[in-house]
Amino acid sequence: MRIEGKEYRTIWYEDEIVKIIDQTKLPHQFIIKELKTVKDAINAIKMMEVRGAPLIGATGAYGIVLAAKENNNFDFIQKNSIELIESRPTAINLKWAVDRMIKKISGINGDKILDTALNEAKEICDEDENFSKNIGINGLKIIEDIYNKKKNTVNILTHCNAGWLATINWGTATSPVYHAHKKGIPVHVWVDETRPRNQGANLTSYELNQENIPNTIIADNTGGILMQRGEVDMCIVGTDRTLSNGDVCNKIGTYLKALAAHDNNVPFYVALPSSTIDWDIEDAKNIPIEERDSEELSHIEGIDENKKIKKILIYPKESKSMNLAFDVTPAKYVTGLITEKGICKASSEGLHKLFK
Amino acid sequence: MRIEGKEYRTIWYEDEIVKIIDQTKLPHQFIIKELKTVKDAINAIKMMEVRGAPLIGATGAYGIVLAAKENNNFDFIQKNSIELIESRPTAINLKWAVDRMIKKISGINGDKILDTALNEAKEICDEDENFSKNIGINGLKIIEDIYNKKKNTVNILTHCNAGWLATINWGTATSPVYHAHKKGIPVHVWVDETRPRNQGANLTSYELNQENIPNTIIADNTGGILMQRGEVDMCIVGTDRTLSNGDVCNKIGTYLKALAAHDNNVPFYVALPSSTIDWDIEDAKNIPIEERDSEELSHIEGIDENKKIKKILIYPKESKSMNLAFDVTPAKYVTGLITEKGICKASSEGLHKLFK
Repeated sequence: MRIEGKEYRTIWYEDEIVKIIDQTKLPHQFIIKELKTVKDAINAIKMMEVRGAPLIGATGAYGIVLAAKENNNFDFIQKNSIELIESRPTAINLKWAVDRMIKKISGINGDKILDTALNEAKEICDEDENFSKNIGINGLKIIEDIYNKKKNTVNILTHCNAGWLATINWGTATSPVYHAHKKGIPVHVWVDETRPRNQGANLTSYELNQENIPNTIIADNTGGILMQRGEVDMCIVGTDRTLSNGDVCNKIGTYLKALAAHDNNVPFYVALPSSTIDWDIEDAKNIPIEERDSEELSHIEGIDENKKIKKILIYPKESKSMNLAFDVTPAKYVTGLITEKGICKASSEGLHKLFK
Repeated sequence: MRIEGKEYRTIWYEDEIVKIIDQTKLPHQFIIKELKTVKDAINAIKMMEVRGAPLIGATGAYGIVLAAKENNNFDFIQKNSIELIESRPTAINLKWAVDRMIKKISGINGDKILDTALNEAKEICDEDENFSKNIGINGLKIIEDIYNKKKNTVNILTHCNAGWLATINWGTATSPVYHAHKKGIPVHVWVDETRPRNQGANLTSYELNQENIPNTIIADNTGGILMQRGEVDMCIVGTDRTLSNGDVCNKIGTYLKALAAHDNNVPFYVALPSSTIDWDIEDAKNIPIEERDSEELSHIEGIDENKKIKKILIYPKESKSMNLAFDVTPAKYVTGLITEKGICKASSEGLHKLFK
C-alpha cells in the first residue's frame, strides 16, 4: 500500500540485504532500515521494529536467509532458528515460518542453501500477500451487506494494527476495509489507540490516512459506549494465534471489545491467514502470553513543540506497572473468522471444514 | 489523607480564600492553588484542577461562597450559579450542591448571605467526608469476607480515580481499601491507567503510594485477562451519576470492566455517596455525556530526561480523535452499590429501600 503516494511492502530483499520499515519510528518518522545479519532480524522482531503476526513470520523467514548468507552450515542456521523463534513468544506465525524454512533447506548443501532459503522466504511473502488480498475479498461481502441495508457510511471498529503494516501488504483486519474503499463503499474506521504501544494510533490511523480512508482515533475505553449508541456497525480485528476451537489470542484489550460487541449485538469478526492457526494447543490457558517491559507503559514517545522526538515519563515515579501484551477472546464472542479461503464459524468444525 | 506524610483535605477555606490541590499537576508537582473569585472556581472545574463528582460538588458550593464574597446581591449569585452548574455536564453532584446552596441563601439579606453560604459549604464538605468514611466502613465488610475465605492478599481492580482526591477525604471506591489497609488486611490494587487523562495512574496510584498501599498500574486493556486468570478478587469503581434504576454513569471504560467482571464472575461494586443519585432521569440515554477536547487524547504531559514537564504530540499529525468522557454501566452488571447508608442492590428497589 501507499506511504506518501509510493507503493511499499513491509519487508523486501534488495541489493542482497533485507529492508524493513522501522515501525517503532512511525508515525513521526518514516525510516527504511537494513537487516544484514540474522541477529539484526532477531533484534528487529524483539524491538518491534517489525510486528504483527504475519510480518513477524516473514521476518523470521528472512532471518534464516540472512543466517544462510553468513554461514551456510546447517547447524549454524538451525541454532539461530531457535533464537529467532524465541524472539517473541505469542504469535504462532514466527515458529510456523521458521520451521517451514528449516524443513525446506534441510538436506541441501553448500551454496544452494542460500538460493533455496531466499526463494522460500519470497514464497512466504507472496503467499501472505495473496492471503491478505483474499481475506479482503471475502470480508468485503460483509461490509457490502451492511452498506446495502444501511445505505450510509459503514462504521468499523478495529483494535491495534492488523493493517498492511502487520502483514506484507493489504493487512488482515484492514484488507476488507481497503477493498470496500476501492469499490467506492463509504467506510469510516474507529481506531482504538491500543495502549501501551499505541499501534492503533501510530500505525492503523497512519496507514488509513495514507490511503485517504476516514478514521477517528479513540481511547481504548471508548468502544463500549459507541456500540451502546449504535455508532459501530461491525468490529474487525486480527489475531496472533487462533486456536483450533476458534478462541483467538490477539492484542491485549481485544477481549473487552468482543464482550461489548456481544452485549450490543454488533458483529465481531476476526481476520486471519491460516498461518496463524495453532492446531496443537487445545486450551487457551496454554498459550504463552508475553509480558513486556513495564517501561512501555510508564514512558511514551512523541513530538515536542520543537518538532523533536521526546520520550517522557507519564507515571508517578514510585509506581509499579505491569505490561501483558495479549489476551484471549473465547470463540463464543466471535461472529466469524475471515480467512483467505472464506468466512467460517469460530469453532473446531468451522476451521476443519475450510482447512483440514 | 496524607501527601508526603502530611494530612490534607482536597478543598478548604483559609485566610478568606478557597484552597485546592491542583490535580492537573499531579503526580509530577504538588501545588496548592488559591481560588479567589467564582470565575476561579468555574475555571478550576472546567480545567479539571478539581475533578471527581463529590469534589466538583464541593467546589461548586465554594464557588457560591466566592460569588457571595464578591457581591452579595442574590441575582448576581444566582446568575453565577448557572454558569457553575454548566461548567461540567455529567456529574450530578455539581447541580445538587449548587442548588442546595442557592436554596439555603435565598431570602437571606446582606452580610448574612456570606456567613450562611460559608457554613453550608463547610457542611457539604463535612457531610461528604462523613459519607466517604461510612462507604469505607460498609465496603470493608466485603473485602474482609474475601480475605477470610482466601487468607491471602485481596486483589482489587479500580478504574479512574474515585479516591480521596475525587472527594473531600477517604474517597468512594478507595475508602473500603483504606479501611481494610488500616485494619491490617493485605490488599493490592490493580489501577487502570484510565486514558485519556490517566487519572488512574496520575491520581489513584499516586494517592495509594502516599498511604503505602501496594498497587500496580495496568493499561485499560488489561483487566479482562487478569479476571480470566483469577487475579482480580473484586472491582470497585466510583460513579458520576447513579440513576434511580441502578444504572451507573462513570468514567469512560467502566462499562468494559463491568462486562469482563460479569463474564468471569468477579464481583463488581460501585461506591457512591447518595449525592450522586439522580432521581429524575429514568433512561440512561438522557444523561448528558461530556465530549472533551480531542487534544486530551492526542497530547500527553510527563517528565523529560531533564526532569522538566513536557507536553508532546503522540498521534499522527493528520489524525482526528474523539474524546467522550463517560459511559453507562447497566445495573444488571453491578453486583451492589456501596453507599454511606449500607450496601444495596443496583436497582430501583434497592435504592428506594435505603434512601426514600
